[in-house]
Amino acid sequence: MGIKDEFEFIKKISLTQKQGLHHDIIVGIGDDAAVVKPPVEMNLLACTDTMVEGIHFKRETMSPYHIGYKALTANISDIAAMGGIPTYFLVSIAIPKNWQENELLEIYSGMEIVAKHNEVKLIGGDTVSTNGPLVVNVTVLGKVEKDSCLKRSNAKAGDIVFLTGTVGDSAAGLHIIVSEKAKEEHFRSLVMKHQIPNPQIQAGRILVQFEGVSANDISDGVASEAKEIAEASNVDLILDASCIPLSMEILFFGRTQALEWALFGGEDYELLGTASKENWIKILKRFKELNLPISMVGSVQKGTGNVYLKENSHVSELARKGFNHFD
Amino acid sequence: MGIKDEFEFIKKISLTQKQGLHHDIIVGIGDDAAVVKPPVEMNLLACTDTMVEGIHFKRETMSPYHIGYKALTANISDIAAMGGIPTYFLVSIAIPKNWQENELLEIYSGMEIVAKHNEVKLIGGDTVSTNGPLVVNVTVLGKVEKDSCLKRSNAKAGDIVFLTGTVGDSAAGLHIIVSEKAKEEHFRSLVMKHQIPNPQIQAGRILVQFEGVSANDISDGVASEAKEIAEASNVDLILDASCIPLSMEILFFGRTQALEWALFGGEDYELLGTASKENWIKILKRFKELNLPISMVGSVQKGTGNVYLKENSHVSELARKGFNHFD
Repeated sequence: MGIKDEFEFIKKISLTQKQGLHHDIIVGIGDDAAVVKPPVEMNLLACTDTMVEGIHFKRETMSPYHIGYKALTANISDIAAMGGIPTYFLVSIAIPKNWQENELLEIYSGMEIVAKHNEVKLIGGDTVSTNGPLVVNVTVLGKVEKDSCLKRSNAKAGDIVFLTGTVGDSAAGLHIIVSEKAKEEHFRSLVMKHQIPNPQIQAGRILVQFEGVSANDISDGVASEAKEIAEASNVDLILDASCIPLSMEILFFGRTQALEWALFGGEDYELLGTASKENWIKILKRFKELNLPISMVGSVQKGTGNVYLKENSHVSELARKGFNHFD
Repeated sequence: MGIKDEFEFIKKISLTQKQGLHHDIIVGIGDDAAVVKPPVEMNLLACTDTMVEGIHFKRETMSPYHIGYKALTANISDIAAMGGIPTYFLVSIAIPKNWQENELLEIYSGMEIVAKHNEVKLIGGDTVSTNGPLVVNVTVLGKVEKDSCLKRSNAKAGDIVFLTGTVGDSAAGLHIIVSEKAKEEHFRSLVMKHQIPNPQIQAGRILVQFEGVSANDISDGVASEAKEIAEASNVDLILDASCIPLSMEILFFGRTQALEWALFGGEDYELLGTASKENWIKILKRFKELNLPISMVGSVQKGTGNVYLKENSHVSELARKGFNHFD
């Protein structure tokens, strides 16, 4: 590890983060475990997510700042997909020996901005060295109302399928960084969606107010996330290709390529989910009032956990393709 | 990753662990985030810890089962060092491509036995591939009484310093595995202390009943942990070399070597801490009643965060040496 003294490094991080010390934090960073006040009249949420250099990013595709930003976003996004409010986070980093201290502090800077914006507080972590690639693990705690959360198993036949924002942009952004560097300035919004995506906490908080809504965040592609909801709910999802929301920028690469990125790209951190038709009308109204983008992209039918894509009156089963960024 | 289908693997783990599904778990493994009931009338504890192949262990020193066992122990130990009760855990693993599925399941088996024994439930995790060494990250949640926890900053001049169990055994065990393989059968207790150490939850639960007790778990050596308490409390700790509890087995390697392992070895997961003299008498009585080993090993004095070792009437400052298992 490029750090002379891990203890000093931890102190530095603790000091940076202590500015935001909250009255709910009894013991913050620097003891064996953090001690915080638990949520009152709400349930506790917890999720964890790991990003590995060479698998989820490369030094050429993401700066240390982006790595930190995205690692925390990916986790907060999981809280959003449950309809919850994120509260605290812990960070574990395995640091290659050739990384420098200022680069590591940049990772924390990237996290700090996301943390500030979403009002989550760093309460703990672990810093170790590795002979391999950089590994960044984040755990986020949160809270959600006792009687509701956006479970994957909530989808029912007759529901509609919705999607917030636009999808495929992150994969398009990665393509530009890796293969068409010269176009970066022209497609800044796509590159930014890849490097500094934002979690949809506000959308999740609206959706959780309606009964029986399911949701997944788009960390893998739409196809994979839809499959997870279909399987967990034991229903089939039928997606309409013409309704998948695509940005103007991504369409520059052609509709076929754009749809491929949307369905199989991932890392958009938008929310895919289902709601009853009655609720959908109210949800749409509420999103419009707040000027938040949301689209109906399909329907739920009786079934056994499959996803179908309707395209030009042709319906075919949608494969759950894994997405390997660098294969 | 040696796994054909990560989704199938996660299902397998979920099924293994679902046997113990608890009524406090609203949503367990398999959704975006776990949903659990928060602690009632107690504070929430959270800690995270990472183990890296080649840094914290090697394939030759720890089997996959041992890796899982120890990774969870190290985290539960942090809860013990706050005087808390562990409740839930999340696991993130970055898996090298040459690892096989059965080896990964062995890691989870190792965790399962520790989980069962300490009544903690697996509620989430993440499995990713890596081109580097295996990285196992565990986050443990727990709870502790609202008005008390074993903070590092609790030490006061006039307190005594205590240590549970014996120390140095884990480092001795590693030495045997690495350098004196033939002696493994003779020194099974030392090897076991390295491979399958146990967290001192019971000790922590007793200590937390007394006001003003500080504690650290021995993950690094006694010297390093004592330094952390001294610094956090802004006092000096004076340790008496002749009082450091050493096992019969470790003394086979000579007193000097044994003490070196005790002070700088780490990974014993015993508790080092401080208590007032009045409380110490009661603590000692309670530990004796329960047949739990605890020793007085020094005293706390006014100071500025230093640790001294008294040996044969000679007092010298104790350096905080880092411990690199494989250097």
